[in-house]
Amino acid sequence: MSELRPRPTGPDALIDALETALGAAALLRDPAEMAPYLADQRGWFTGRAPVVVSPASTAEVSTVLRLASEAGVTVVPQGGNTGLVGGSIPDESGGSIVLSLRRMNRVREVDPVDFTITVEAGCVLAEVQTAAREAGLLFPLSLAAEGSCRIGGNLATNAGGTAVLRYGNTRDLVLGLEVVLADGRIWEGLRRLRKDNTGYKLAQLFVGSEGTLGVITAAVLRLFPMPREVRTALLALRDPRDAGVVLEALRSATGDAVTSFEYMNRASVELALEQVAGNVDPFDRPHDHYLLVELSSARQGAGLLEALESVLAPILEDGGVVDAVLAQSGPQAEALWRIRETIPEAQRLAGAGLKHDVSVPLSRLPELLERGAPAMLAEVPGALVVAFGHFGDGNVHFNLNQPPGMGRAAFMARREAVEHAIYELVAELEGSFGAEHGIGRVKRAYLTRYRPAVEVEAMRRLKRALDPAGILNPGVML
Amino acid sequence: MSELRPRPTGPDALIDALETALGAAALLRDPAEMAPYLADQRGWFTGRAPVVVSPASTAEVSTVLRLASEAGVTVVPQGGNTGLVGGSIPDESGGSIVLSLRRMNRVREVDPVDFTITVEAGCVLAEVQTAAREAGLLFPLSLAAEGSCRIGGNLATNAGGTAVLRYGNTRDLVLGLEVVLADGRIWEGLRRLRKDNTGYKLAQLFVGSEGTLGVITAAVLRLFPMPREVRTALLALRDPRDAGVVLEALRSATGDAVTSFEYMNRASVELALEQVAGNVDPFDRPHDHYLLVELSSARQGAGLLEALESVLAPILEDGGVVDAVLAQSGPQAEALWRIRETIPEAQRLAGAGLKHDVSVPLSRLPELLERGAPAMLAEVPGALVVAFGHFGDGNVHFNLNQPPGMGRAAFMARREAVEHAIYELVAELEGSFGAEHGIGRVKRAYLTRYRPAVEVEAMRRLKRALDPAGILNPGVML
Repeated sequence: MSELRPRPTGPDALIDALETALGAAALLRDPAEMAPYLADQRGWFTGRAPVVVSPASTAEVSTVLRLASEAGVTVVPQGGNTGLVGGSIPDESGGSIVLSLRRMNRVREVDPVDFTITVEAGCVLAEVQTAAREAGLLFPLSLAAEGSCRIGGNLATNAGGTAVLRYGNTRDLVLGLEVVLADGRIWEGLRRLRKDNTGYKLAQLFVGSEGTLGVITAAVLRLFPMPREVRTALLALRDPRDAGVVLEALRSATGDAVTSFEYMNRASVELALEQVAGNVDPFDRPHDHYLLVELSSARQGAGLLEALESVLAPILEDGGVVDAVLAQSGPQAEALWRIRETIPEAQRLAGAGLKHDVSVPLSRLPELLERGAPAMLAEVPGALVVAFGHFGDGNVHFNLNQPPGMGRAAFMARREAVEHAIYELVAELEGSFGAEHGIGRVKRAYLTRYRPAVEVEAMRRLKRALDPAGILNPGVML
Repeated sequence: MSELRPRPTGPDALIDALETALGAAALLRDPAEMAPYLADQRGWFTGRAPVVVSPASTAEVSTVLRLASEAGVTVVPQGGNTGLVGGSIPDESGGSIVLSLRRMNRVREVDPVDFTITVEAGCVLAEVQTAAREAGLLFPLSLAAEGSCRIGGNLATNAGGTAVLRYGNTRDLVLGLEVVLADGRIWEGLRRLRKDNTGYKLAQLFVGSEGTLGVITAAVLRLFPMPREVRTALLALRDPRDAGVVLEALRSATGDAVTSFEYMNRASVELALEQVAGNVDPFDRPHDHYLLVELSSARQGAGLLEALESVLAPILEDGGVVDAVLAQSGPQAEALWRIRETIPEAQRLAGAGLKHDVSVPLSRLPELLERGAPAMLAEVPGALVVAFGHFGDGNVHFNLNQPPGMGRAAFMARREAVEHAIYELVAELEGSFGAEHGIGRVKRAYLTRYRPAVEVEAMRRLKRALDPAGILNPGVML
């Protein structure tokens, strides 16, 4: 063909091409049908898009990205859309299409000898857990949204959760990835090797890149022996400074079997007890600080209860731990966990909230808790400091709820001032303004404020190297 | 100044500038003094360089790289120079300078609450282990060269070793890095956070990049509770197919306390017994396959011996494990480990060897062992197949020693044919031709042969993004 035809560009031409390539059933264009894909769960972000496309295979994802690249149209990859930083929502320009991975939801393989599971990006996290369990093994990633978040999103955001202390973040559970690059090329990196030193670790670059470097379509993930003994306890502390000692003693006494080590301040527990039906205070009086501890072992008869008691006895005596409840059954353990897990819901029911997902070195966490509350309250006197999270990882959700006498709008108008107060303190303590929720659209400005210029510039170079045309998730992270 | 002077370029101008900036004491120019920095331990590579420069601080490393970039001179970073793939040796052109990190050897901090240690790149691995131990904690990276390799090299090559099964590869032990980029800029990424989702994980890109993307000058590394109970056993197997079952049973029975799970074939044990004085066969007759198992726990009285016996009893009865020796003391355990650790030395004493550091999914390892030996022997009939390594990681050193009647040169001339035979099989079994030793200069051609073109191209783009002038470690990896 000698005739030169300009390649059709722009969203309309792209939609025609997508419909031809994938069929009409893969496309949503009706505003009502698209709505759930264009807004985040908290209602902070509502974007626009000409189409939501849901490919059913890696080849189709490749087609979508190739066509989008050719048309010069940007693409917002989306998993379960449960993120808290607006990273999976298109902006209001309407210039980006949404690429939902929800139809790529097969568990491709479970291998009990290799301790691996191979899953597609659209698998709901709970389905991955179940598939592992059915093979007698544990997939340890566990977080509040596990019933609706999808593993591709967990990977793209390097999700954390309640078992990081023992099993690591999502990135630590990854052996291999399959990724479609911005131009549609497929990287077949689904290796399931424990050791592979053949070049740069691309998989680790894609994990946590929030869909800005490539679209993860499948992953090989690590599995673990299923816990056979689990012990759960709620401890009451006078001073969070004693928590580090408790953790260290428990790690040694149990042979590193501490799976969760969660912190809750008094306000967060009281909110959960007041706002959520069915929660019951296991103690006879309120305490200032609580630790929810879970020990687990694949070994039947691991003696975890004895280890726990041996650690607690001297600390209870000398007053570091004021009181303790050991769950005597599965339901009792669940009741303790339910207090911890319903805090976000309780917070929502109690009014507007400002959330700060921060981390510091473990040794600085007591100081953060001590100084962070007055720093935030100086900006909004009378507000409720709701602090809870993953003490063992140095990660606390250091939130603020609107004070009784203050309207929602007036409270939310204080957002930047409160964030400034807490993030400056976190920076002073050598911490991170984004521990597990990521950057997304919410925290982009903080990246340049709190990270070295050299680091941000290196990130920009990597982005340009892998997505030179800027097709993937514009406006997110960088 | 309005006068335009061309910036002096080339090695001679650079050496003058380095001497001015760092002082003559930081430079080696005498051929005899430089020799140890220009050849690898095995004697496979001897390069040339106009100077070996040894900066004493991060600022000095920065100066070296800035000056080298300005002069357009390439730089070969070097740690303990114990690598096996020629990755720290300059080529024969004499156009690169060697940048030795040996003078940057301070342990900056040990924090027992955070379970972290902050070290400079030039620390010898054994010194890092010792510093952790003195704080009552464990730094678990352990490998044959630990008395002379330096942690910067371990990081640059993502070193493996004998405790990967339990604690992961070097990259899994890294929390933060300090890196000097090719142009001399310093990335201050020494964060010691367990959770930090603020952008791409640069640290994971530098780890394992073999000095081609930046020069690691310091690191924050994870520590663990010190093991208080350690049990060591040597098992004799009829068929390596039974090893997977033993490993799975041990992981469950001990609560995931299997630290090492090392394989040795009969030839490797016999070599160690014959060639190295002091090694004693703990069994009364030879066996075809051996597993060296180490269990460890931070818990005093963890009952590991009981767990081990409970796993072995039924397997010994039904014949999967033919015989077993449980070490009854520290010295007995050391004697068992010594057999395993002296195999490389024994192999060297026994003549010329061809080494293949390969990995496959754990489930395919028995097939690799079964089919790999005849595949290599078809290329060199009568050679000795010396197979040993990290079974639990799917990683075996599948080596070949020269046959009695064959000269060294004739044997070494078969190198490519033997590599072809074993690497093709490894590829068929979805494995890696470089498990823990890296690419360096030796395996560069295999990267393009066995890794997808998309992956290699992405690596090239990342290299150009971070080292656009190609200053760092030319000819290594890519």
